[in-house]
Amino acid sequence: MAANDLLSDYLAAAVEAAQKAGEVIRKGFYQTKHVEHKGQVDLVTETDKACEDLIFNHLKQLYPAHKFIGEETTAACGTSELTDEPTWIVDPLDGTTNFVHGFPFVCISIGLTIGKVPTVGVVYNPIMEELFTGVQGKGAYLNGKPIKVSSQSELVKCLLATEAGTKRDKPTLDASTERIKSLLFKVRSVRMSGSCALNLCGVACGRLELFYETGFGGPWDVAGGAVIVKEAGGLVYDP
Amino acid sequence: MAANDLLSDYLAAAVEAAQKAGEVIRKGFYQTKHVEHKGQVDLVTETDKACEDLIFNHLKQLYPAHKFIGEETTAACGTSELTDEPTWIVDPLDGTTNFVHGFPFVCISIGLTIGKVPTVGVVYNPIMEELFTGVQGKGAYLNGKPIKVSSQSELVKCLLATEAGTKRDKPTLDASTERIKSLLFKVRSVRMSGSCALNLCGVACGRLELFYETGFGGPWDVAGGAVIVKEAGGLVYDP
Repeated sequence: MAANDLLSDYLAAAVEAAQKAGEVIRKGFYQTKHVEHKGQVDLVTETDKACEDLIFNHLKQLYPAHKFIGEETTAACGTSELTDEPTWIVDPLDGTTNFVHGFPFVCISIGLTIGKVPTVGVVYNPIMEELFTGVQGKGAYLNGKPIKVSSQSELVKCLLATEAGTKRDKPTLDASTERIKSLLFKVRSVRMSGSCALNLCGVACGRLELFYETGFGGPWDVAGGAVIVKEAGGLVYDP
Repeated sequence: MAANDLLSDYLAAAVEAAQKAGEVIRKGFYQTKHVEHKGQVDLVTETDKACEDLIFNHLKQLYPAHKFIGEETTAACGTSELTDEPTWIVDPLDGTTNFVHGFPFVCISIGLTIGKVPTVGVVYNPIMEELFTGVQGKGAYLNGKPIKVSSQSELVKCLLATEAGTKRDKPTLDASTERIKSLLFKVRSVRMSGSCALNLCGVACGRLELFYETGFGGPWDVAGGAVIVKEAGGLVYDP
């Protein structure tokens, strides 16, 4: 099979896996406000785990020789080293706080690296029914329509996204709020949506010009979105 | 006509007006990224003005004796004093920065005060197709389903919304970022969506526990949402 056909197959498989997991997330999303008997944290953990299993099983059946890195598996079994092998890097539920609160920025993020290069990316928000996809050299799409990053070149007209992060010690918060303050002198405004992968996709489709996050969760937060941003004409930078 | 029937009529009229304006906003929303010939600011102004005219004309035909306060009209003709008369307070397009950027938190906000008391509220996000409504003494609804505020009582589990605001002088930014920093020690996380009225509705339906904004635009930002929050069991407080 030609390399192009293979990449199309990988993309189709990732989209299918994301849509399956999306059904589980959608169901849980509308339940969280009514979970009395077992607590919201349990529901998150269960949904997260169920979605990761579902995505991994779907992809492993098709590609048994591939490697897999997932947020849940890593949390349970420790870090997996990234090799040159085709490796699926999955966040089954990005935006867990939003999930608990019913705030509609939640998504599944699936990335495939080949030779350590992010090659296929799928980010799916099952609540807003937005499916972002990207394949190296083949462009980025939102629900099948091509997307590109904003062409805005004046910083004062740019919309910036960032996140408060989960580290809340004084030095971290001093630094992060100081950074936001400096930027508020320069950009049009700031958005905090609570999902790293959806912020990347917001940049990819030109809703946001800029996004940065310090101390994000792990490679699963960015592996899918990075391909989509790059294929939409954007830059991804890890200082 | 009984008072209850009157309020139901007012609500129905406000929903109709919001839905009409929603069509105009939806059309503009998907155009903004492709406006080359006249500039985005013009599109915002035109959409804002067209929606306010549309809403006012719709309501004035039905209730010619009522008073009207709108963001656009006030910007053009100066402040209108709030009297005891039934008064419609309208923001035809809340979240103009989001509108320009294609970020999906935009809405129409319509509030009716009677004897200066917010009595009917309609907030409609035509992009996410979420219609929030509230009538004094008759509850709050999202797309026809009853909503209520979060029952969370531990601050550390609460999701807070706020906005960066439009004033960007040093004393304002020092104070606002200092405030956010203090709160980040105490709450679960912070969201900034860019729409005051939708933040209020986020509180009303329990997606957010808390929202504050200093120096917001005017009464049109809150007149609709305030009724909805109160009818959902929440508190609105103006220090």
